[in-house]
Amino acid sequence: MDVLEELRVFREKDIPYSRVLSSMCTIPHELAVKAHQLFIGTNLGDPGIFPGTVELERKLVAMIGELLHHKECVGYICSGGTEANIQGIRSARNVMRRKEPNIVIPKTAHFSFEKICDILCVEVRRANVDEDYKVDLAEVEKLVDDRTVAIVGIAGTTELGQIDPIVELSRLAEERNIPLHIDAAFGGFVIPFMDDPYPFDFANKGVSSITIDPHKMGMATIPAGGILFREESFLRALEVETPYLTSKMQFTLTGTRPGTGVASAYAVLKGLGFKGMKEIVKRCLRNTRILMEEMSLMGFEPVIEPVMNVVAFKTERAEEIKHELYRRRWVISTIREPKAIRFVVMSHVTEEVIKNFMSEFRKVVQWK
Amino acid sequence: MDVLEELRVFREKDIPYSRVLSSMCTIPHELAVKAHQLFIGTNLGDPGIFPGTVELERKLVAMIGELLHHKECVGYICSGGTEANIQGIRSARNVMRRKEPNIVIPKTAHFSFEKICDILCVEVRRANVDEDYKVDLAEVEKLVDDRTVAIVGIAGTTELGQIDPIVELSRLAEERNIPLHIDAAFGGFVIPFMDDPYPFDFANKGVSSITIDPHKMGMATIPAGGILFREESFLRALEVETPYLTSKMQFTLTGTRPGTGVASAYAVLKGLGFKGMKEIVKRCLRNTRILMEEMSLMGFEPVIEPVMNVVAFKTERAEEIKHELYRRRWVISTIREPKAIRFVVMSHVTEEVIKNFMSEFRKVVQWK
Repeated sequence: MDVLEELRVFREKDIPYSRVLSSMCTIPHELAVKAHQLFIGTNLGDPGIFPGTVELERKLVAMIGELLHHKECVGYICSGGTEANIQGIRSARNVMRRKEPNIVIPKTAHFSFEKICDILCVEVRRANVDEDYKVDLAEVEKLVDDRTVAIVGIAGTTELGQIDPIVELSRLAEERNIPLHIDAAFGGFVIPFMDDPYPFDFANKGVSSITIDPHKMGMATIPAGGILFREESFLRALEVETPYLTSKMQFTLTGTRPGTGVASAYAVLKGLGFKGMKEIVKRCLRNTRILMEEMSLMGFEPVIEPVMNVVAFKTERAEEIKHELYRRRWVISTIREPKAIRFVVMSHVTEEVIKNFMSEFRKVVQWK
Repeated sequence: MDVLEELRVFREKDIPYSRVLSSMCTIPHELAVKAHQLFIGTNLGDPGIFPGTVELERKLVAMIGELLHHKECVGYICSGGTEANIQGIRSARNVMRRKEPNIVIPKTAHFSFEKICDILCVEVRRANVDEDYKVDLAEVEKLVDDRTVAIVGIAGTTELGQIDPIVELSRLAEERNIPLHIDAAFGGFVIPFMDDPYPFDFANKGVSSITIDPHKMGMATIPAGGILFREESFLRALEVETPYLTSKMQFTLTGTRPGTGVASAYAVLKGLGFKGMKEIVKRCLRNTRILMEEMSLMGFEPVIEPVMNVVAFKTERAEEIKHELYRRRWVISTIREPKAIRFVVMSHVTEEVIKNFMSEFRKVVQWK
């Protein structure tokens, strides 16, 4: 058997996305795949060799910046939300220069902040959330002190798709003169395309950095994360010297860095345009509604009224249901609190997928 | 103009690898590109969805482990050498648990260790090198103390392709009971395929982790770095909990993680086999010789007799030559000390490329 044949056999063991209702990633858009092929040999880690790809990245960053109400922002396309969050916090830590630094994050923040705490040697203080699973402002205020180097707000929590009160967090951050980092890894390419979008971005003066991942709702190929800063000084705070490269300094976390994510993200955003993205988001939100109705017919209640295309339903049997579905090659996930099963309605979760899923789900739920 | 046409225009501004003699990356192997396509939608960050890709990664890690004389090693395919080095040092730091930790590295270590120092809050102590640009053992011994959490040795330095005295470093590491991390990002896929290979790997009992990058001499697609540990406890020291994923814990630095690097690295190593890799390395070494002879005819002297397919030539005019070549769309690089121009003879640097380069180089050198 030749090696490509062997690889095909491994690949077929993977579960197709048509059976995955829990991932924040999806099948990359057709334009993204084509763009990816064109840039497969590129390395943004050595920018002098790839001036065209560098120029494209600059255009993409400005394009995303415009979407986030600050075209003059600086930043880059990275390996994903974790690197973006690390770099957001690292820059704030380096700009603020406090002894025994801490950051204040919502309890609902992504687990990558656990890594950040270990990696960057900052203390992580978790603020409680209110009954809507938004961070409690009074809690944040209480936890902030003169060693706080960043406050974090989430625009689209991983578990529930909830948006923190970023307008108020921004006001607090401004008052206390502390950088506010927004984790919009998921919501960044959802909220701007919703009717009456919540102002989660640089429009709030206190927001100093934003994580926004093209390889989630931006339908780019993996890896394509994004970290954007309001001010260049934050990017500079990440730099080290780079001898024997075509550049003098490097602010990225990784060295060698593919240009594929830049190309695929650009292809989708430019190719579909604001209107096309709006349609994708609209369809995901409509399908979330359809899933809600189906689940409601079966007596399942959502943890919160969904804000975007993420929804969780309360059930004491969450783990058992997840495992039985997985045994049948369907993937959903569970959340920590309250006990619930969780769905992410990405663009591959079509009406047909939901129909197929529900028919299996009914069997599983009635199975015991 | 449609968006793919627009992307093509950007891509054409990049400099083709046939004019690049300074990169440790290269045109990915044809097998790598084909394997990459097959796995373009995969995400190892959510392993339950991709059990086939996970299995393939395990096979690849064992295959590389075998090459490095420890088939039972554990580790994963990451974004590149920087992540691999961060994780190697982070695991050692977490296993050792010292207050105000430090690491001892050769002066010749890659600049990613500057980032590591900033990111991981460890003090970096740089040991001097001897006249062959190998780390000075006595210096290392002097710098090590009871707060040292790792010693670093390089197998293929970025500037000169030199190999540190890893056998002796390993003995010291064992004596002092300190983890020894080997940065073989470049040399890892060169040394094993050389005649009479230097023992840089797990064959030395003191070596606890190795960085080895498939996307350099392994001709895989970017991103494909590798971090391998002798013992599972080092991997465990990196773990955080991962709710709402199909796995319980995550030891990687990034979350979402492409399977393309795994597939492309596997395709090349399995497809070419040990014999095929040996031929590639042999050709690169032969072409390094050819470049040496050409340069020597022009009166240029190497900084050290090349150990692998990296070579630098002394010249006070290094910066000027580099810039003038770049103006003519040829890419070489320079090193810090002594003043020299540096070449990496990857598989795309064929006899023809060298011939074309030398004809331009002659003009540039005589130009002033």
